[in-house]
Amino acid sequence: MKKHNFNAGPSILSQYAIEETAKGVQNLNGSGLSVLEISHRSKDFSAIMDEATALLRELLDVPQDYSIAFIHGGASMQFCMIPYNFLNKKAAYLDTGAWSSKAIKEAKIFGEVDVVASSKEAVYNYIPKGWTIPADADYFHITTNNTIYGTEIKTDIDSPVPLIADTSSDILSRPMDVSKYGLIYGGAQKNIGPAGVGFAIIKNELLEKIVRPMPTMLSYKTYTENGSLYNTPSCVSIYSAMLNMRWLKNTGGVSAIYKKNIEKSELLYNEINRNKLFKTTVANEADRSIMNVTFVMNDEYKEKEADFMTYATSKGIIGIKGHRSVGGYRASIYNAMPIESIQVLVDAMKEYEAKL
Amino acid sequence: MKKHNFNAGPSILSQYAIEETAKGVQNLNGSGLSVLEISHRSKDFSAIMDEATALLRELLDVPQDYSIAFIHGGASMQFCMIPYNFLNKKAAYLDTGAWSSKAIKEAKIFGEVDVVASSKEAVYNYIPKGWTIPADADYFHITTNNTIYGTEIKTDIDSPVPLIADTSSDILSRPMDVSKYGLIYGGAQKNIGPAGVGFAIIKNELLEKIVRPMPTMLSYKTYTENGSLYNTPSCVSIYSAMLNMRWLKNTGGVSAIYKKNIEKSELLYNEINRNKLFKTTVANEADRSIMNVTFVMNDEYKEKEADFMTYATSKGIIGIKGHRSVGGYRASIYNAMPIESIQVLVDAMKEYEAKL
Repeated sequence: MKKHNFNAGPSILSQYAIEETAKGVQNLNGSGLSVLEISHRSKDFSAIMDEATALLRELLDVPQDYSIAFIHGGASMQFCMIPYNFLNKKAAYLDTGAWSSKAIKEAKIFGEVDVVASSKEAVYNYIPKGWTIPADADYFHITTNNTIYGTEIKTDIDSPVPLIADTSSDILSRPMDVSKYGLIYGGAQKNIGPAGVGFAIIKNELLEKIVRPMPTMLSYKTYTENGSLYNTPSCVSIYSAMLNMRWLKNTGGVSAIYKKNIEKSELLYNEINRNKLFKTTVANEADRSIMNVTFVMNDEYKEKEADFMTYATSKGIIGIKGHRSVGGYRASIYNAMPIESIQVLVDAMKEYEAKL
Repeated sequence: MKKHNFNAGPSILSQYAIEETAKGVQNLNGSGLSVLEISHRSKDFSAIMDEATALLRELLDVPQDYSIAFIHGGASMQFCMIPYNFLNKKAAYLDTGAWSSKAIKEAKIFGEVDVVASSKEAVYNYIPKGWTIPADADYFHITTNNTIYGTEIKTDIDSPVPLIADTSSDILSRPMDVSKYGLIYGGAQKNIGPAGVGFAIIKNELLEKIVRPMPTMLSYKTYTENGSLYNTPSCVSIYSAMLNMRWLKNTGGVSAIYKKNIEKSELLYNEINRNKLFKTTVANEADRSIMNVTFVMNDEYKEKEADFMTYATSKGIIGIKGHRSVGGYRASIYNAMPIESIQVLVDAMKEYEAKL
């Protein structure tokens, strides 16, 4: 039976990336060697790193005064790198979920943190509005997509100070005006590639603001000045990410995938709205994520939640259990998720409703 | 033509690991999903992480009062984690090469560093002897194998303070008395698995000495207390490492591979000694590494160095160019390197000598 992979991350990748990664693991470009066993300083791997960097630049239309880096440790490592590099006096953060909170916790080790707003009191079921970015902050940090709660900041904010965005779970899902950001970063394991590597798109002038002495591997400059090859990078993850971005380019790039993402999320949100069994967990329709669709059963059907999960599993639907802090269901519908799989989920919701 | 992969790292892995990784990338254990796209919290990945941890414990006979962790960022990241976690007053380091020097540089950010001895003045062509470990140091740090220079500390040192060893390039090549160490660490990309992950084998009582507040991702406790799953780990690299360690266990484990490693390195060292064209770069025979064999041409044949490289390449020999700081050749003969490939190199050396 075909599996429909709604995992929140690591998550569905393009079949192209999966098949080509498997080939490269056996024999990279006919070299007789596996991508697992070639030197990161070899011509073959340099070509992979160059293509991965160029693809990310092209796909997001990254201006020339920005550097692109592949960084160890996922977004969590950058939660501490950001204040280590850039928090000299005070930083401002918007608290929109568990990942924002973790980023804030790391920042507090390095200096003063001004949390401009938080929706924690409502289990982060909306994106706070009406806050002000302090003009004296070293930077303003946001989490654009909140995987657990199904909310998303879908526009590029104007900020008087460098805007830093954790875009782990919505990077490459929609066009962005990169020039509005100082740093766009995240873990790769949603729309870029598999787990094992993080990325950073950083305005070069921001790098000049680094004054604190710090460990080599935590300085953004170590990555930007050495083409992400100061030490051995996560070669196979970068190879697979390159292939997945090549797939995205070949399917029309970010504008084309954005249209599909809107269509895909609308299909599911419309069914949640229509179906008498289900309701969204997001308070404001405008805040609903196009990447992670969170929903629960209406109170009168609550006792059926586990049973619907079993029914969905019988249809090949995988990974829709909601995070424990929200409950219910979460369908992660990243770039590589075909609309046909969402239709399978929608059909299961309809069928289950008809059965009751 | 068959390729003989003498790369220093990332480097040759067992065919079993390569083939099984390729299969898991396509379809993990018949699940219908790729190892690239499953959740790190899934039953399938938990089984991988558990087996990887258990294999490392079994292969090195790690005592029960030690924890095992898989850590982001390679040995370079741990160069800063070690002093961040454990350097409260003063640390002692033995300087045996470029990697020791990098570890020392990071330690100096956090406190006083006592370099007990260095062979830098002789381009690190020997392991310094006759030094004393200061009894008031928080720890004593060594690099057991010096990939660039072909030297190795092949015995387990007695230390009055916790002994911390970067074993990136000789872990699992010989039996170790783990109980003599406070922390054994490194990058995976030689004998453990592919690039993209590091490892740590840490005595639990050492963890109690952590007093400095520090970023979450730099604390060893974050990894040991969360089974290396605080955040998304480098899933495919850990999968491949698990497979490679499974191969090592199935071929007889560390004692068996150690015998083969001795035999393999002797074969090559004997030819270097016999052949009139070549000489070792290591000053003391006792310091010669069984993992990285460095050699150059004798002065009277110096102008033939590039030509021999071309000749070796024509025989399918890959990756024997020496590091620029030493010159000549470096044959890295890690666990997965079959003696047949070393014989091909030895034959090429003999044939080339006969041709001159």
